[in-house]
Amino acid sequence: MKLTRRDFSRLGAMSALSGALTLGAPAQAETPPGRKLRWCIVALGRISMGQFMPGLRLSKTGTITAIVSGHREKAEQQAALYHVSPKNIYNYENFDEIRHNEEIDAVYIALPNAMHAEFTIRAARAGKHVLCEKPMATTLADCRAMIEACRSNNVKLMIAYRCQYHPSHLRAIELIRSGAVGKVLAIESAFGFDIKPGEWRLNKRMAGGGPLVDVGIYALNASRYLTGESPGHIKANASVIDHDGRFTQVEENDGWTVEFPSGIVASCNTTYGGLMNGFFRVHATKGWIYMDGFNYSGMHLTALLASGKQIDQPDPIPSPGQFTLEADYFADCVWANREPKTGGDEGLRDMTAISRIYESAGLRLGV
Amino acid sequence: MKLTRRDFSRLGAMSALSGALTLGAPAQAETPPGRKLRWCIVALGRISMGQFMPGLRLSKTGTITAIVSGHREKAEQQAALYHVSPKNIYNYENFDEIRHNEEIDAVYIALPNAMHAEFTIRAARAGKHVLCEKPMATTLADCRAMIEACRSNNVKLMIAYRCQYHPSHLRAIELIRSGAVGKVLAIESAFGFDIKPGEWRLNKRMAGGGPLVDVGIYALNASRYLTGESPGHIKANASVIDHDGRFTQVEENDGWTVEFPSGIVASCNTTYGGLMNGFFRVHATKGWIYMDGFNYSGMHLTALLASGKQIDQPDPIPSPGQFTLEADYFADCVWANREPKTGGDEGLRDMTAISRIYESAGLRLGV
Repeated sequence: MKLTRRDFSRLGAMSALSGALTLGAPAQAETPPGRKLRWCIVALGRISMGQFMPGLRLSKTGTITAIVSGHREKAEQQAALYHVSPKNIYNYENFDEIRHNEEIDAVYIALPNAMHAEFTIRAARAGKHVLCEKPMATTLADCRAMIEACRSNNVKLMIAYRCQYHPSHLRAIELIRSGAVGKVLAIESAFGFDIKPGEWRLNKRMAGGGPLVDVGIYALNASRYLTGESPGHIKANASVIDHDGRFTQVEENDGWTVEFPSGIVASCNTTYGGLMNGFFRVHATKGWIYMDGFNYSGMHLTALLASGKQIDQPDPIPSPGQFTLEADYFADCVWANREPKTGGDEGLRDMTAISRIYESAGLRLGV
Repeated sequence: MKLTRRDFSRLGAMSALSGALTLGAPAQAETPPGRKLRWCIVALGRISMGQFMPGLRLSKTGTITAIVSGHREKAEQQAALYHVSPKNIYNYENFDEIRHNEEIDAVYIALPNAMHAEFTIRAARAGKHVLCEKPMATTLADCRAMIEACRSNNVKLMIAYRCQYHPSHLRAIELIRSGAVGKVLAIESAFGFDIKPGEWRLNKRMAGGGPLVDVGIYALNASRYLTGESPGHIKANASVIDHDGRFTQVEENDGWTVEFPSGIVASCNTTYGGLMNGFFRVHATKGWIYMDGFNYSGMHLTALLASGKQIDQPDPIPSPGQFTLEADYFADCVWANREPKTGGDEGLRDMTAISRIYESAGLRLGV
């Protein structure tokens, strides 16, 4: 996909806006003059090729300098597309050689979930900063090992919670923190989709769990960043309805309710069995905030504030712009030597909550 | 409020439509020629004066012939408004005298929850049919006593689940039963509002519980009529956030998740602390159905069907039309000697589920 110059300008404006929200989002990343963060893309799947790499193409702060893939031909095609030197194509076996490549500052890991830990740790040992896709890992022990490896090797670790860098979600958070809707009482949130047979996401050893770890995590994470609290009581159900062979290892549906320490109650759903548009609704004492979508585009924000003001804000960020913002934020953390707000601890917090959701539903995270 | 002749025609058309859905909704009630069901209104609160009585004014099947109130003057004003003879005004002490009044066929009970059982049983013993507001009662024992009293006195008992008589909700049910959206996977539903201090609803002895029994019951009931199943696993949280004196006896917020026997998961919220527009979202294997509202008006239905067809149906029933439909249905049951689909058993099923929700959240129904 190709963005127009006009899209690019809008993106810049939104990036500046998100920086103004004082929520840990950066001001426009302060790239050292003449220097961009040089990315090594690990795994050429849908999210890499369809979103993150096109997102980096729009970025003023980053550029793709290396690619890791098990498919040499595909890697060469993508390398050509992004002007990556063929000598900077790696595979999963010789991946550790990136330590000798000074044209790589950071890796973006978009592997199947169970491989996040290994490649984060290998990247850290190679001295490269790590942006790792969610879910962080498939066990809590792996999450802790990832945090420790990045800490001891003095590299940044960020989990790719893109919504936390999207201006509409940041605005929702800001509306809550500023008291514009009063005190939050309750949240509904959900996200799910109809999964195709044969995906690695249906293999528990690869995925760690079903829709909860993959897309339910957006609803969970939203309930955490909207409230700014850690989950207290967690109660959950999980089920399989469609016995068509897809759900022999992971669950098809999860429903859960979380009570946060303040008393805020969140009730959430996820599924791999059918259509479930991502959304949240925040109910507060003096207003409400709705978000339509956790998708790559279409994040429509509406709200009623205590002042009586109504907000109706279509998604200001054309796809893949939210990945640009995410990469820009990460670059800023690297250059400023600042811990990302969605660092390893944030990933571990979600995985801990997911583990508790599974436990309540009689399941368990990982194998 | 006054409806125009055009509204009335639309209402008639919708009434006929609801009858065509073969979901237990009646065809246009078959009133014996020249005879209307003669109603005694028990309690002159907001729902009686604002909705049910104006709804009966639109009805071809019913008429108000008696009023029961603790406020003689208010009763006389309403009696004048509805052409009720002053001799047919009762109070709560002489209520049992209605047994001698042949101008009364049925009572509509809109008292505080804890009084539903007593007045249902007294009405049954007086030989009058009973339409009782939800929640059915404040204890399961009371629900059972109401069912038994109506059974042994050979009168009909219906719980006023108005949404189950609204054509938009009936259409949602029909879309599910017909397979038009595939198999249902998950439901979100919620309903709540910002309660005023001093309401009897905040008194647990009068109400039996907080927002769950009052408005959360709409979300619960919807999950039951949409799935057509009985709740299996129920998990819940309840909380009080606003310590302003309102919530010393009942909870402020409830969140719960239900797994139905088929595996369908419903996640629901309710509150008395702030704005929470009623809604549900049904996610199915081949489509979805959304409803905006459990209110007296504004029930906007949208859906995507397996066929690709999209539905966008604004509420076809101007307020107080859904009360007209409810009263017409009840009249039909009386004349046809048919058990209402929302009879005492239906009320008891909700109250049983509510009791289990409270238990899971560490609370209990009733005092």
